[in-house]
Amino acid sequence: MTYDGERFVLTEAGRRQVEALGLDRVAEQRCETCAGRGIVLRPPFDRVLETFQKIVTMRPKATPNFDQGYVTVETTVLRLALMAQRGDLVGRDLLLLGDDDLTAIAAALSGLPRRIFVLDVDERIVGFIRDVARDRGWDNVHAEVYDVQDPLPENLRGQFDVFFTDPVETVRGIFLFLSRCTEALRGPGSAGYFGLSFLEASWKKWRDIQRGILDMGFAITDMLGAFQEYQLENIVAQGYPVARMAPVAVKEPDVSFYVSTVYRLELTEEPRPLFTGRVELGRDLYYDDEACVTLPR
Amino acid sequence: MTYDGERFVLTEAGRRQVEALGLDRVAEQRCETCAGRGIVLRPPFDRVLETFQKIVTMRPKATPNFDQGYVTVETTVLRLALMAQRGDLVGRDLLLLGDDDLTAIAAALSGLPRRIFVLDVDERIVGFIRDVARDRGWDNVHAEVYDVQDPLPENLRGQFDVFFTDPVETVRGIFLFLSRCTEALRGPGSAGYFGLSFLEASWKKWRDIQRGILDMGFAITDMLGAFQEYQLENIVAQGYPVARMAPVAVKEPDVSFYVSTVYRLELTEEPRPLFTGRVELGRDLYYDDEACVTLPR
Repeated sequence: MTYDGERFVLTEAGRRQVEALGLDRVAEQRCETCAGRGIVLRPPFDRVLETFQKIVTMRPKATPNFDQGYVTVETTVLRLALMAQRGDLVGRDLLLLGDDDLTAIAAALSGLPRRIFVLDVDERIVGFIRDVARDRGWDNVHAEVYDVQDPLPENLRGQFDVFFTDPVETVRGIFLFLSRCTEALRGPGSAGYFGLSFLEASWKKWRDIQRGILDMGFAITDMLGAFQEYQLENIVAQGYPVARMAPVAVKEPDVSFYVSTVYRLELTEEPRPLFTGRVELGRDLYYDDEACVTLPR
Repeated sequence: MTYDGERFVLTEAGRRQVEALGLDRVAEQRCETCAGRGIVLRPPFDRVLETFQKIVTMRPKATPNFDQGYVTVETTVLRLALMAQRGDLVGRDLLLLGDDDLTAIAAALSGLPRRIFVLDVDERIVGFIRDVARDRGWDNVHAEVYDVQDPLPENLRGQFDVFFTDPVETVRGIFLFLSRCTEALRGPGSAGYFGLSFLEASWKKWRDIQRGILDMGFAITDMLGAFQEYQLENIVAQGYPVARMAPVAVKEPDVSFYVSTVYRLELTEEPRPLFTGRVELGRDLYYDDEACVTLPR
């Protein structure tokens, strides 16, 4: 491999090795229709996407203060289609822990969940969701400012059928987010979804996280790779580690390089959160050795 | 719900409930192009499928003696496409533990793996694979008769980059199959694939299996739901429990009702098989409380 000033390219020796192995005979096998997700947008989600796209143009801008960085609007709506497909949306009580993606709004547009509750540390997100809900007359959509380091409000414990969260990518941070969500679930049969990248998390870290998930009483029922695509901006300009770590000078990316896997979990046991009560994580909440698309605070 | 003599249908009350919930407004969200798998057949696998289809017409018939029941030819080749996509096929040493699907033949047709080794308890399968390999002049394809209750032959330990197995569906049986495969892997970075249904395995059982997988030193990196489709015949005629358990008289199914999830595992630690040496499981190898598409022996 060598760098031609624009991108990495194969050297002559590399090309010979590729041919010897037969790698050049293997095409991309990913389905183009669904980009490998296995899910496409059919009614009512195709219409949800249209309206959702208009509403989010007025969204608060992502801030690295809270490790925000939202997924594409298509990802948000595809996630709901996946949940509907798995029986986790229609008539369900849904908790969203951290919602800079504004999933609550897309979910409410579908008219399918019974109740939608958002907890987010950013009052701009909470305010925006409340404003849209008031304008649209959605009385089943609620949003509260909440710091994941605080205990889960008592009136939310054991009240939900399904959660979705796209947590920070440190092991302790993920366990903290998942613990709060777990505490909010009703019991066996309740389900949860969360996103995990392999850009900021090694397989070793995945294994630790998976062990914690089982310990909390869940089985992992689905893992959809590269399901979530993020809309990250100014990666180089803002000095994200991933740009500074590059062995050559890099420009702003022109493809969505940050994707993540969606996990679906289902409680087979009584919920056993790893953390309860007040937990101080500070900087460790957001940042560890593997973080590279997270800005140090 | 009621039974109209042909199929289960909604009652009038059921239909009203569906409308009240909005369930009738939710279409099937699965991608039709790839049947929700996310993977399609592109070169060289489209050509592999063509030739493979011809070869398998002469295959030995599935026997319930060994809980056989093979997947469709498309499934076999799609699985290889998935492995290629994850970097687990080209130039790799591949172990197949149990191969009534004849994956070895499809893999050899692709020309991509370095070495392909089959272990199967059924000498008809071993003989068939050897015959095809001899006819085609494949000197990197090997097949041996092997009972999973026997220790893994010493010369196969620590020799493979990748395994695939579609084991029995009892927890101890799965652990035994995966243990043999784990013992055959080189070490951290080596990968494995196996199939698991949710028809014969509850989420509780999935959780137990997932714990065992982590204990053996793996992270679970992918889980592709309903990736494998089986070609089962004479379900009613052979008296499979699933047909006898039905609350009404059933006919032979006219759709593929048996599907399974493909797991991809990757070792992040030194391999730690749960079982080594000779292990007698007898009838418990194949049969437990949740078995319903397995014939009691």
